[in-house]
Amino acid sequence: MSDLKEYITDMARAAKKASVGLRTLNADAKNAALKAIAESIDARRAEIRAANAKDVERGTKAGLSSAMVDRLTLTDTRVDEIIGSLREIVALEDPVGEIVGVRRPQGFVLEKVRTPIGVIAMIYESRPNVTVDAAALCLKSGNAAILRGGSEALESSMVLVKCIRESLARVGVDGNAVQYVERTEHEAIDSLVRQAGLIDLVVPRGREALIRRVTENATVPVIKHYKGVCHIYVDETADLSMAAEVVTNSKMQRPGTCNALEKLLVQESVAARFLPMVRRKMPSVEFRGDERVREILSDAKPATEEEWYEEYLDLILAVKVVKDLEEAAAHIEKYGSSHTDGICSSDARHIEQFVSLVDSSVVMVNASTRLNDGGIFGLGAELGISTDKLHARGPMGLRELTTWKWVLRGNGDIRK
Amino acid sequence: MSDLKEYITDMARAAKKASVGLRTLNADAKNAALKAIAESIDARRAEIRAANAKDVERGTKAGLSSAMVDRLTLTDTRVDEIIGSLREIVALEDPVGEIVGVRRPQGFVLEKVRTPIGVIAMIYESRPNVTVDAAALCLKSGNAAILRGGSEALESSMVLVKCIRESLARVGVDGNAVQYVERTEHEAIDSLVRQAGLIDLVVPRGREALIRRVTENATVPVIKHYKGVCHIYVDETADLSMAAEVVTNSKMQRPGTCNALEKLLVQESVAARFLPMVRRKMPSVEFRGDERVREILSDAKPATEEEWYEEYLDLILAVKVVKDLEEAAAHIEKYGSSHTDGICSSDARHIEQFVSLVDSSVVMVNASTRLNDGGIFGLGAELGISTDKLHARGPMGLRELTTWKWVLRGNGDIRK
Repeated sequence: MSDLKEYITDMARAAKKASVGLRTLNADAKNAALKAIAESIDARRAEIRAANAKDVERGTKAGLSSAMVDRLTLTDTRVDEIIGSLREIVALEDPVGEIVGVRRPQGFVLEKVRTPIGVIAMIYESRPNVTVDAAALCLKSGNAAILRGGSEALESSMVLVKCIRESLARVGVDGNAVQYVERTEHEAIDSLVRQAGLIDLVVPRGREALIRRVTENATVPVIKHYKGVCHIYVDETADLSMAAEVVTNSKMQRPGTCNALEKLLVQESVAARFLPMVRRKMPSVEFRGDERVREILSDAKPATEEEWYEEYLDLILAVKVVKDLEEAAAHIEKYGSSHTDGICSSDARHIEQFVSLVDSSVVMVNASTRLNDGGIFGLGAELGISTDKLHARGPMGLRELTTWKWVLRGNGDIRK
Repeated sequence: MSDLKEYITDMARAAKKASVGLRTLNADAKNAALKAIAESIDARRAEIRAANAKDVERGTKAGLSSAMVDRLTLTDTRVDEIIGSLREIVALEDPVGEIVGVRRPQGFVLEKVRTPIGVIAMIYESRPNVTVDAAALCLKSGNAAILRGGSEALESSMVLVKCIRESLARVGVDGNAVQYVERTEHEAIDSLVRQAGLIDLVVPRGREALIRRVTENATVPVIKHYKGVCHIYVDETADLSMAAEVVTNSKMQRPGTCNALEKLLVQESVAARFLPMVRRKMPSVEFRGDERVREILSDAKPATEEEWYEEYLDLILAVKVVKDLEEAAAHIEKYGSSHTDGICSSDARHIEQFVSLVDSSVVMVNASTRLNDGGIFGLGAELGISTDKLHARGPMGLRELTTWKWVLRGNGDIRK
């Protein structure tokens, strides 16, 4: 254990040192590094595929589900996507140095200037492309990155990190700007998240248990979402055929994601008309519900009290008939995860009431929950989605990886 | 202990419940509450002074320093200041509901809307006016507040909290929007900072030991500053008489505050001219320094290695002669606290280099460190100063007590 702690602390110290150099790097220098990484990954395709084949073989033997193996596998197309994603990050505007605000109180000039955060640790599972995306987003925003991916993708990640570090060296950037935790013990994570003073932010992505463990142990600030228990409330004034489209897309477009719909709340006066409409549009989905739902939908199964808190990530939808908007908002407040919750309604007053009552990171009005995405929001690539209240809420793009400093430009100004 | 935990958890639950009501309160309703509090404090002056007299008597007996007793004492003028501060907060613009940004990607309207954070716990020491200021700033920004002031001011705070809660009741706001932790055990704080899920933010203010204990134990996000080890670097191009004014004001204007100057770095080629100038302007200050400083200032005492990290909060100044700007920046990086650090220089290139190298919450150019203040920055009253990187950096005003949500206004929009 003590050598593990030392290993992590050394890494954090090296990252902190590298972060000082990154602070003053201009956009051209950072883009040169990102382009070099893209070239290096392109040149080392065979090596990446070979390493990935070992991960896939080990994973298959270890009995990973086919969905997990699929997420782990790097085909040639997926390597192309990694390179494409790097090029997209090159094209994004450098957030660092942007003057967010200027004030002129008492004569002097006061600027609020966007700066890097410093050192960001990213803890994630499975997909190897996250290794490159996370490193690239941190670099572009001037931050040093410490990456800790899932052990199932270790071989693939190691080659990708080699590409990154050799590229940094080639363009004259401290290679410790991107480091990878090769130690696979869980204690490596515990140690990582306690490096307050060296690491400035931890972003965990993955299963709720992993994220809870990180939050419980961390002395470093954490930005995260635990899960996405997303709701849509269908109001009595809703355009029901539009609502049925929105609900179906929210549930079906990609059910395994955190912004997929999990729970449907229907105002009682339209339940008998609306529920058969959505039932017909989603024949492959298992419906669960309270007694009133089961009166309307004969094939619906009963929903338990506990499952209202649950994220299915599967073709299951729990439905509840509610008296009014207040009951819907209270239900979302109690059982929701503040991720993505929406209303379908044609009544402007109802819409505004829902928007002000429901305290979720993203509130959807007559739109699919699946639209909660950094790319779709026009924020560029995202490092994750935050349901926390501090610093970042909703999709976390480049800007959410920055902070600011105040610069007061005086001319001998003193305090009277 | 278990009843203490229950006491704190009940309080946090009640605050969370109250915070739901605060979310939808408009500016008029919040200002009515603040005005009612001002009236109530005005009406209960005698009671407040009597309670405060008990605190002062107990504190004096317990051997508090005269500076501490002074900070604890509520004179009639200070009660006026508390009321004045409430009226200033009424006059501030309500940050909640402000649309921070609008985007129109893919046809739909996407709004970033400022919202309250939720429940904020404030832990502080001594001065009773903080009780009212913190409650008022939280209320105005739509947050429920849990306050834990120093036990030496308990009687005064209890009467002030009574004024606040009776005023809330009078204007129809849930009284649990402002609660005060009467239990004086240190474990009450430990329990408070572990209420993740109920409390959204902890702001500790006080001694470094208190803040470290909070940070070590917290599962709730913390925004803080440990201390203010503030530096000024005097460059060889500086207008030396202006620099002497700025340094003197930074050190002398109020030496006991976190933004007072503690360390002076002087470029070697101007040290022999500059140091006698500042020495003459600050006869009451004890100078400490390295050998080169002591060659120039015969009455300077030696500075130890450890004291470069130290915040004196007293009439002491440590001075170091440095080769150049890089050495100054490296010194600030190593020994500083990222609070307030400045440069005196006439060379634009040197200034920009210093500004980009030094990663402090506020960087001063030819200006006194004492100008780091929410009021002077034009941000209104401040809850504290943050040297953290996330969410808030520098003075924390009303806006720093808010977060945002995204509202996507569609018309049947779905993900393709």
